[in-house]
This record gives sequence, C-alpha cells and structure tokens, in this order.
Amino acid sequence: MASSTISCNASDLIPLLSGGANATAAAAAAEFICQRFETVSGKFTDAGYAIDNTYLLFSAYLVFSMQLGFAMLCAGSVRAKNTMNIMLTNVIDAAAGGLFYYLFGFAFAYGAPSNGFIGKHFFGMSDFPKPTFDYPFFLYQWTFAIAAAGITSGSIAERTQFVAYLIYSSFLTGLVYPIVSHWFWSSDGWASPARSDNLLFQSGVIDFAGSGVVHMVGGIAGLWGALIEGPRIGRFEQRSKPLTLRGHSATLVVLGTFLLWFGWYGFNPGSFAIIFKSYGTSPGSSFYGQWSAVGRTAVTTTLAGCTAALTTLFGKRLIDGYWNVTDVCNGLLGGFAAITSGCSVVEPWAAVICGFVAAWVLMGFNKLADKLQFDDPLEAAQLHGGCGAWGIIFTGLFADKTYVSEIYGGDPNRPFGLFMGGGGRLLAAHVVQIVVIVGWVSVTMGTLFFVLHKMELLRIPSEDEVAGMDPTSHGGLAYMYTEEEIKNGIMVRGVGGEDDHVQGHVGVL
Amino acid sequence: MASSTISCNASDLIPLLSGGANATAAAAAAEFICQRFETVSGKFTDAGYAIDNTYLLFSAYLVFSMQLGFAMLCAGSVRAKNTMNIMLTNVIDAAAGGLFYYLFGFAFAYGAPSNGFIGKHFFGMSDFPKPTFDYPFFLYQWTFAIAAAGITSGSIAERTQFVAYLIYSSFLTGLVYPIVSHWFWSSDGWASPARSDNLLFQSGVIDFAGSGVVHMVGGIAGLWGALIEGPRIGRFEQRSKPLTLRGHSATLVVLGTFLLWFGWYGFNPGSFAIIFKSYGTSPGSSFYGQWSAVGRTAVTTTLAGCTAALTTLFGKRLIDGYWNVTDVCNGLLGGFAAITSGCSVVEPWAAVICGFVAAWVLMGFNKLADKLQFDDPLEAAQLHGGCGAWGIIFTGLFADKTYVSEIYGGDPNRPFGLFMGGGGRLLAAHVVQIVVIVGWVSVTMGTLFFVLHKMELLRIPSEDEVAGMDPTSHGGLAYMYTEEEIKNGIMVRGVGGEDDHVQGHVGVL
Amino acid sequence: MASSTISCNASDLIPLLSGGANATAAAAAAEFICQRFETVSGKFTDAGYAIDNTYLLFSAYLVFSMQLGFAMLCAGSVRAKNTMNIMLTNVIDAAAGGLFYYLFGFAFAYGAPSNGFIGKHFFGMSDFPKPTFDYPFFLYQWTFAIAAAGITSGSIAERTQFVAYLIYSSFLTGLVYPIVSHWFWSSDGWASPARSDNLLFQSGVIDFAGSGVVHMVGGIAGLWGALIEGPRIGRFEQRSKPLTLRGHSATLVVLGTFLLWFGWYGFNPGSFAIIFKSYGTSPGSSFYGQWSAVGRTAVTTTLAGCTAALTTLFGKRLIDGYWNVTDVCNGLLGGFAAITSGCSVVEPWAAVICGFVAAWVLMGFNKLADKLQFDDPLEAAQLHGGCGAWGIIFTGLFADKTYVSEIYGGDPNRPFGLFMGGGGRLLAAHVVQIVVIVGWVSVTMGTLFFVLHKMELLRIPSEDEVAGMDPTSHGGLAYMYTEEEIKNGIMVRGVGGEDDHVQGHVGVL
Repeated sequence: MASSTISCNASDLIPLLSGGANATAAAAAAEFICQRFETVSGKFTDAGYAIDNTYLLFSAYLVFSMQLGFAMLCAGSVRAKNTMNIMLTNVIDAAAGGLFYYLFGFAFAYGAPSNGFIGKHFFGMSDFPKPTFDYPFFLYQWTFAIAAAGITSGSIAERTQFVAYLIYSSFLTGLVYPIVSHWFWSSDGWASPARSDNLLFQSGVIDFAGSGVVHMVGGIAGLWGALIEGPRIGRFEQRSKPLTLRGHSATLVVLGTFLLWFGWYGFNPGSFAIIFKSYGTSPGSSFYGQWSAVGRTAVTTTLAGCTAALTTLFGKRLIDGYWNVTDVCNGLLGGFAAITSGCSVVEPWAAVICGFVAAWVLMGFNKLADKLQFDDPLEAAQLHGGCGAWGIIFTGLFADKTYVSEIYGGDPNRPFGLFMGGGGRLLAAHVVQIVVIVGWVSVTMGTLFFVLHKMELLRIPSEDEVAGMDPTSHGGLAYMYTEEEIKNGIMVRGVGGEDDHVQGHVGVL
Repeated sequence: MASSTISCNASDLIPLLSGGANATAAAAAAEFICQRFETVSGKFTDAGYAIDNTYLLFSAYLVFSMQLGFAMLCAGSVRAKNTMNIMLTNVIDAAAGGLFYYLFGFAFAYGAPSNGFIGKHFFGMSDFPKPTFDYPFFLYQWTFAIAAAGITSGSIAERTQFVAYLIYSSFLTGLVYPIVSHWFWSSDGWASPARSDNLLFQSGVIDFAGSGVVHMVGGIAGLWGALIEGPRIGRFEQRSKPLTLRGHSATLVVLGTFLLWFGWYGFNPGSFAIIFKSYGTSPGSSFYGQWSAVGRTAVTTTLAGCTAALTTLFGKRLIDGYWNVTDVCNGLLGGFAAITSGCSVVEPWAAVICGFVAAWVLMGFNKLADKLQFDDPLEAAQLHGGCGAWGIIFTGLFADKTYVSEIYGGDPNRPFGLFMGGGGRLLAAHVVQIVVIVGWVSVTMGTLFFVLHKMELLRIPSEDEVAGMDPTSHGGLAYMYTEEEIKNGIMVRGVGGEDDHVQGHVGVL
Repeated sequence: MASSTISCNASDLIPLLSGGANATAAAAAAEFICQRFETVSGKFTDAGYAIDNTYLLFSAYLVFSMQLGFAMLCAGSVRAKNTMNIMLTNVIDAAAGGLFYYLFGFAFAYGAPSNGFIGKHFFGMSDFPKPTFDYPFFLYQWTFAIAAAGITSGSIAERTQFVAYLIYSSFLTGLVYPIVSHWFWSSDGWASPARSDNLLFQSGVIDFAGSGVVHMVGGIAGLWGALIEGPRIGRFEQRSKPLTLRGHSATLVVLGTFLLWFGWYGFNPGSFAIIFKSYGTSPGSSFYGQWSAVGRTAVTTTLAGCTAALTTLFGKRLIDGYWNVTDVCNGLLGGFAAITSGCSVVEPWAAVICGFVAAWVLMGFNKLADKLQFDDPLEAAQLHGGCGAWGIIFTGLFADKTYVSEIYGGDPNRPFGLFMGGGGRLLAAHVVQIVVIVGWVSVTMGTLFFVLHKMELLRIPSEDEVAGMDPTSHGGLAYMYTEEEIKNGIMVRGVGGEDDHVQGHVGVL
C-alpha cells in the first residue's frame, strides 16, 4: 500500500485486526490506521494552504484595484491640464513599486529573523517560498506598498517635477514604508503585537490593516511635500478667501471613490491573511471562526465609511449650504482610513463612532489647512494623515477584549481598549506609534523633499504650472472632444527628437 | 493525548489493539479511533465555513461593485448639468443603506424565528453571529438592499429634490425592501420555498436572486416616483414626437453596464451562499455539486444577457435604422434582470429564450411609455419592473425538475416549470408574487411619493430644472475641461455661509 | 449506521474490536473503519471541487472585467467621433461571443476525445457537466475567447463597417480561436504539452495562458484587417512624418489599462484551473504547492508588466523628449502579453527580462509600422502579435526545469528552456507555434477580411470616416457636455423609421 493514502481496503486490515492479542499484528494494524490519520491531517494542511491562499490572492487583487481608484480620484480632482501627469504618477507608483518592492522593499519589511528595526532576507525574492512567506503574501504586501505612494501623489499634485516624483516614489516604496511596516507588522518588529517577548507596553501596537503604517506614512509624506513646495498658483492669492481650484471631473472622483471602497474589502478583511481557522475549542465545535472575523471586519469597514459619508453630507450642507458630492467622497474615504487600524477588533457600533468622528476630523483639518494656507489638492495629508491618526487613537479606546485575544492571542490579559475597560497601555502604545511615524517620515521624506527643493528638482516653473503640466511635460492634453480642439492641435515642447509627429490636428479633417 | 487531534501515534494505539478480546482495551481503542474521526468530521465543518464564506464574501464585493456600475450608468444617462446630483444619490444609497440596514433592515428581513410578514431579531446586529447568520451573510444582503434603491434613483433622475431622495432611499432600504425579502427569502416568509410547511400552492416562490424581490421592487417604486413627478421639462412638449433627452456620456453608460455585468456574477451565482455541497449520494461519489450549479448559474446569466443584447441590437436596427450602443446596454441589463429569478433552476438553452423575450419586453414597455408620456430617464421601471416581471413568469414556465429538487429539496414531487411538465402551481405562485409586490410597493412607496408631492418636497422648481441641479443644489457643474469653462467660473447658490470660496475661476489663470 | 459518514460512535466499534482473533468481528471492524476513511477521502474530493471552482469562477470574473478594460482602452484611444462605434464592438464581442462559444466554440476547442485538429463534443453544452469539464471551466474559456476578439477590434478601429465587425467577430470567437486553443490546450491537441504520446519534439508547446493562443491570434487577425483596410484618412498623408491621430481621452486609456492589469490576475494565475494540489511527496509534507505556483504566476506577471512600463517610460523619454502616459500603458500591456506564455514556468528575475525586451519589441514594431505606413489605432497587431511572439520565444529560452515538471508532469527529463540548460526542443516547438498561428490566422482571417473587402463590406465610405462613425452609423455622438452641444443637436442619418425622435436639443432649454 502507498505510504500516503487515505484509501482503506478492508481486506488489508482484516488480517491485522484478526491477530488480536498478537503484538505484531496489533502493531501493523495501528500503523495502518495511524498512517491514514496522518494523511488526513496532512490533507487538511494542504486544504488550508489552498483556501487561505485563494482568499489572500483575491484580496490582493482587490487592493490592487485601489491603484486604479487612486488614479481616477486624483485625475478627477486636478484641473484638466494636469491629468496626464497625475495618472502617469499613479501608473509609475505601481510599476516602480513592483520592481523596488521585489528587489529590496519586501526584504526590509519582512526579512525575518532580523532585528526590530529592519528586515534583511529575501532580497529579490531569494529563498522564496518559505513556510512563513509564500508568493501570494508578497503580492499582497506589494499592493500595500504602492497604496502608500499613491496617497502622497495627491498632496503634491499639479506642481511637482516628474523626476522628483520618480525619486520620491521609489524611496517611499522601497525604503521608508517597508521599514515602518517592519516595526509594526513583522513578527520581530519592535512594536509588533505578535512579538514573543518585550511587547511595547506589554501590548504592542494593533494597527491591523494600517491606518498608521500605510495611511499616516503616505499622508505625512504628502504633508512635507506640499509644505515644502508651497501652494499652487492662485490658491491663496486673493485677499478674502482661499480659492478652491476645482478638479475637472466629479465623475472621475466618484468612480475613484467607489473603486477605493471596493478595494478596501481586500485591504481590511484581507489583512487576516488566513481565513481557515476556527475559534472553537475543538474542530467543528463552533460556527464562529476567522471567517466570521473577516466578515465582521468588512462590516465595520462599511459602517465607518457610511457614517463618515452621511456626517459629511449634513455637515457640509450646514457649513456650505449645498449637497457636496466630492466632499462626501472624501468624508467616506476618511472613515475608511480611520477604521483601517481597528477594523478587526472593534464592534460594529464602535465603527459608527469611528466614522462619525473621522468626518469631523477631516472637516476640521481642512479648515485648519485653509487657515494656514496649506494647499493639498487631494486633501491627502488631512485625510490619510489626520483620519489615520484618529483611527489609531480610536483603536486604543475601543478595541474589544475578546477580539484582541482571538486575533492576537498570547497573554489572555493583554491590554485592550481604554473605554472597554482594558486600561491605557494599548492607547499609550498607539500614541507612541503616531509619534514615531510622524518622526520617521518627517526625517526621511521631509529631508528628501527639502533636498530636492534645494536642488531645484521639486517644483515645476511657474509658467509650466499656469500652462499645465500635460502640454509642457507630457506631450499634450489628455482630452480632445471637439473638432475645434482637434483642429487647434496641441503644442508640444519636446526635448528633441521626433516630437513634431505628435500632434492632434489633421489637415483633411 | 489531546482531545481534538487527528494526529495518530501508533505507539499509543498498539497496546490498545493488543488487548484483543479484552473489553477495556477494546473500549479504549474504539475511543481512540472514533475521537479522531470526530475531529476529522469537525475539521470538514470548519473547512466548509472557510470555503463558503470566502465564496460569499467575494460575491458580496462583486455585488457591491454594482453600486459603482449604477452610479456610472446613471451619470452617463443624464444631462451633464445633473451629474453631481445623480452620483450623490448613488453614494448616499450605499451609505444610508449601510446604516439603516444595520440598524433595522436586516432585522426586518431575516430576523427569524418570527412570522411570515416581518422579521424581529438582530436589530443593530445584536446577537451576531449565529449559526444561521454570520457577518458575511449580512454584508451580502446589504449589497442587495442598496441595489434596489439604486434602481429607483434612475426613474426619478434629473428632477427630484435631494431631501426627497434621502427620505425615499432610507424608507426603501430600511423597510419596504427588507419586508419583501422576508416574504420570499427568509425561512419563515409566507411565500418562501424553504418553509417546512404551508408552502404557497405547495410550492413557494422561486425567486432565486431577486427578479421580483430586488428588481421589481426597485422598478415599481421608480414607476410611482416618475409617475407622480411627471416627465422632465421638454420631454413631451412638441406636438409630434417625444424628445429623447440624451444622456451626456455614452462612455459612462458602457462603463456602468460592464460593471453591472461584472457585479451580476456576485448577484446570481453568489445567491447560493454555500458552494461546498455535493449532489452525489455520498462524499466523493460525484463530480457534480453546488459548485457546478454555481457555475451553471453564471452561464445562464451570461447567456440571457448576451441574447438580450443581440436581440436589441438587431431589433433597434430595424426600428431606428442605426446600431445603438446605449439601447444594447439596456437590453443586456434587461436580460440580466429577467434571468435573475430563475438563473439557478433553468437550462442554458432556456436562458437564451429568457433573454430573447426580455429584449422585446423592454422595447415594448419603452414604446408604451412613450405613448403614455411616461418619462423614466433610465428606463428603470420598464427594465427592472418589466423584465423583472417577465423573469418571474419565465421561471414558472421553465424551471427544471432536477435543479429545483437539488437546490430547494423537500418533497421530490414539488412543482416545477409548466412547460417542463411540472404543472401550473409554481407559475400560480409566481403570479401571486408579481401581484403582491406591485401591491405592496404601490401602497408604501406610491403613498410616500404622493405625500412628498403634496408637501412640495418632491420635485425641484422648474427654473432649477432648466438650469440643472448641479449648479443650483450641488455647488457647481461636474466638469471643467476648458480654460473657457474655468474662466467663466461656476455660479453657486448657497443657503449661506462660505459658498463664495467655492468657484472655479482663478485670476492669474 | 449510514453508509457514508465520518461520524464514529465508539459503542458501535467496541464489540467489533472486542472480537479479537474472531475473524468475523475483525472483518466488521475493518469494514467500519475503512468505510469512514473512504468517506473522508470522498469529502476531500468534494472540498477540492468547491475550492478549485471558487478559485476558477472568480478568476473567470476577473478575466471578464478585461472586456471592460478593452472597451475603455479602445474608447480612449480613438477620436471622440468614433467612441460609440468602438464601444459597441466591445459589447458585441462579449455578447455574440457568449452565444457562439456556447453553440459551437467550446465544442471545437475542448470536445475531446477527438483528433488533434478540432474538437467534436459538447455543442450547445450538451452533456454538461462531465468529470472533465464543469460549468465554471466553460465560463472561464468563454472569457478567453472574447478577449481574442477584443484585441482585433483595436486594429481595425475608426474605419470598419459594423456589419463586417459582426461577421469577423463571430467567425473568430466561434471557429478560428477555438481551433487554435484545441491544438495547444486540449488534452488531445496536436501540440499540447499534456498529450500522453506523440508530444511535438517530445515536448509540446508551453503556452500557459496564451501569448500565442489568445494574443497572437487576436494580433495577427488585426494585422490582416488593418493591412487590407489601409490606414485611416490623414494618418500618412503629409510628406514629412506620420501623424498620430490622438485618442480623445487619456483618462479612459489609463482606466482601461488598469482594468486589464486587474483582469490579467484572472488570466494568468487563473489558468491553473486547480489550486488545491500539493507539490510535496505526501499530504501535508510541504507548504509548497500549486497555491505557491499560482501566486508566483501573479508575481511574474506583475514584474514583467512593471519592467516593461518603466522601460517604455525612459525609452520614450529619450526618443520623444517627454513623459508619455499612453505609451507607458501600451508598454505595460506589451509586457503582460509577453509573459502570458511563460508566466507559470519562469523565475521572477526572468520575468523582469521578459518585460524589458517586450518594451523594446513594441517600440521597434511601432517604428516599423510607421515606416511601412501600417496604421493600427491601438497598436494591437504590434502589441499582441509582436510581444506575444516574443513571449513564446522567451518561454523557450527561460522555462525552468522544476516548474515545467511540477506543472506539466510526465517525463522528468522533458525539455525546458534553452538558456536554463534544457536543450532546444522546447524552443523549436515554440517556433513551430508561431509559424502555425501566423499561417492559420492568415489563411482564415486574412481570407475573410479580403473577401469582405472585395464585397465592399469592410471599410466605411470616406465621408463617413471624416464625419465620424457615431453620427453616421450610431445615432449621434457619445458626448454632450455643453449647452452649445445640446442646442446644436446631433444629426442622425437613419435608414428610416423614427429616427427623428432621437436628438439632443430641446426647445425650452
């Protein structure tokens, strides 16, 4: 009989059992039976890999679709003359991010065993796969890395040299972000809640899907970029009020927002990485398991976003006097950015609170930005930075004891949310998270943007800004709807070569 | 040894089996072996939860993407000046729907044990999860609830006050739709095919994914809304023919249609909720199981839509003299709305018939609407109401005996399609379904729209309608492509506050 | 006790084991135990169906979303006046493809047992499902068939009669493509790597997801179509340089490209069809299995596309002097088309090489096309034909021994990539693949296009081409943004009937 089969032929077993008190026969029978149980056990292990990786891969595809969401949201939020530019940055985020995360980003993030600060294995995916890390996990983490870069692109939109973008995007995806994710998500990160010992405040940071690791990193990077570049021409130049330089297509904003919503179901519920895990005391003893927690995470995510959208709808109606769809979209995304930290460990009702507050946090930061003449075309610093920070605090306040224990295990008395009776240690760890992320991103990305600024590589010339980046750097405008536009053609300023063959007008038309 | 393990160490079993006729040893051996089989059985239960919930969650995400599809379809089908308005209604459908379905919608729909009319448990997701209902199921049902509201938004587009929209959308998602879904889909609904006794006409209604529960509900609500509001200005004011007030972007219509097609693969095949179920007499005895039925449902859905699209293509070519892409899109969606009822219980060839007829139903109702001067900008009443009703009849005619029995079980002689030799009882139940849905939605939504109309909360002033809802209620137009548009700026009529900071023009540009 | 249960009641087993040397009791005990193992084994079979079909169905949905990607990419790449036309062709590809692939396409492709050239079973899905083919597999293959047709639509855009499109699309989806897929993918195709004997060059062709079967077929068909139709008016009529007739919306190009990227995760990783398969020697003995290979395929796909995008970015910057987003999108897609053949059997580092070369292949073929005055509005022949051919060669050079053996099995010494030490036989088979695909598609599609051309059914009249296909054949333009456009209305040239009710202008507006 084969050594690994579940098949059982009674005629093989009969003589073994017939042996009765015969020790040799008993041994053979025991061997026969046990071998099969071992095989069964192994098959479940295999089934687990198949189920979990299916779940993880499709979650990764969903998160990838957020890149499309960012591209559309950004495109719609800028003026038509800068559309090609912003979309190219989103495509390049994904492309350069793919290459850099493959070469070293993943290694810095998850190259354990290592130290608390930075990983050091798996450069260029060497030694893949391992029992700890398989290809689907790499793909999933790559989609997170490019999301962080996508956030920042919004803050510095409409005025940044493309070369600066290439440098900053690679630096963020390849180094700055991976190191932060190592701290909080790698098993040996210094603030990881999964460490076997030396947990930060005996707790570690619970940033489940990355309000801090992804959103604050992208947002704070954007904050420095936008601050160092300064506001767009025309934004704060009238004596009275700041001018909203409206984006050219609300349709693209809504399209992008819904795609981000869609993709967030990969981002948050997908972050469990494993779905085939019962929370019962023995197999089959409970209908309740990680599949429930994954679903609950999708529900809390949904409720936080919905509440934030509604809050913004009525809030902006009161403030501005009309029903504003693009602000509602931003409010919705603010709710998602906030719940991303605690989505897996809070109750649905708490998610409603999270979203409600997130909407006001965003409106408040936007107000403040106007006051301080800070110009972020996508409100990315306010939204991902501000609401992200609120989400981190929120988790420190509302994390549920049972959920924390089910998901993070370890000490049954580990800290949980302050308002849920879990003491202040989780909250303290979360305050530390905010501080170190702000510090780290400021030191790295802030310095980078400053150096680029000093080298005059950061901002485009003001005549290009007025004319638009598309005609000056990207070969022409993104749109040609009318004969008029086609006839007038597109002015292209090339560096040389065959640029004259790129034009929109055709004599005979 | 641990109490729940499949692992089997022969050295543990040997002494037990060696006992032979020794009853104590035999008991221990039996215990040893059986405990492991119980564990194996439990692991399969767990695996089932993991597999089924993965399938259900990703199906829910697909159905959610239909909301994006609706938004784009609606946006493209209205004039540019009403784009912001219609997109905001789609975002708010999802957001308000999320909150209301969480608070009470789900409870009304699935709060069993209850009565045949309305559910009464799980308000605010209290007592979640249960063996019967886990979080992924809630999420899946929420995506259906918001789809119903999305349908209606098309019928009343371009002329409805936003406040009226908020009221109607909440009422539909939170109450009217949940009650209908209770009737047909909750295990104790009065017309459910899954009741243990008192089946309607010994059959119950087979509305698998909701041609009636979702599409007719949305469509009939839209019918009353559009009827009470009356047609848009300019639609029927020339003596000769009605004017088609063309939507502003066929590209958005196609984008929305394809997204709805994509999402329908969550809507129909996802409605099984469970995929890990063999139809064989014993495990492993058949390659044929619910996974096949799920796939077949995807195939019937595809074929009905494809046939309806082709039928519309040639039908409209004959009638109008050109190849019409937006009508083909609507025809396609009509085919989907029709097959949604019977998708799981009919043969692929029957789906072709379903789609063929659906195309003519839609073209016929559109002709009739023009005759009666009924104006539905998205043809939503005709499409979801009309084709939905045809789909319900279709299932009563073509439901296959074997498929009905595999999916709904119970009495092997339960009624099936009239044309398939199953008698007229299923068809009779389906006629009842159409009647009660029309009645219930007319009484509830018709009354609501009428009250709003009487309170002058329903329709916008005609000067706003001419100017467009975006500049009058939503802060400006959705698009600004040219310098001209940007220079001229956008007029905003605010209720007060800081509306003057919202504008499109910038001096220096 | 039931005949198929894993449940084990010790009280049933005790008397059996107590029998000891008693042969009858031993037989009963053996029967009791073995029956349960058989049931366990059967449950794993069922679980396999559920897991694999879930994975395959959602992969099919992703591939379907590529049709939306094509529609948007094509729409954005043509001039505004031809938008309705190109989008209709994409909708009809899917719809007509659905019907024809159902009626006979699948039968020609996979109707085994048959001969090496063409299948002959399963017409109209008769005899579905079989152990070999279940519904999800049909759905998955249909999405591939319509992708091939979608490719060709780009080559002949902006100048092809719609009737010609209907004929060509049905012929390609229903006959030409299915036969090619039979050769390489059906178990009895003459060049299949899965044949039990008579392997082509003892190897067969490894075209895992179809650089040849899908992309070259679509691309070569497009080559002949574009060649026979000739270039668009205005493209090559100036003495100096060819004019790029720019598409009307780069936003749609980026949207389409990202959707294709998203869908490619169904196309390539989904082509395994099965994910629950360990590569270990016994169940549970290895974390490494087909789930890893599926993930690796997603990674190689990603890296090839990313590298091609970056290469194009810098390459075009050098050549043209600006950062070109639409060319980057095409480069990205060229990388995907190339890696599609070898995605499952090469290392990630090789995928980087694949993408790098693909970008230059595309730039080179585009240069050549300009020189030869060949006009393909979407560069589809160059991209899918050219990069597809490169991908086939690439696999012959870089296929990894271990991966080939894990995925294709059979002889452990079967040929693999030339550069990996596997000899030249795989490469030889791949050269044969290129030759026969070029030959077959040229003979069939080339002839068809030529006949249509001779019958004057292929190209539209030049006045229609100048005016645009939308106003002349499709009832009007796709867009109406401004009051100006709405007031001027849309000229419709109908064949008769009620065309006068289709117009954009309304008196009172």
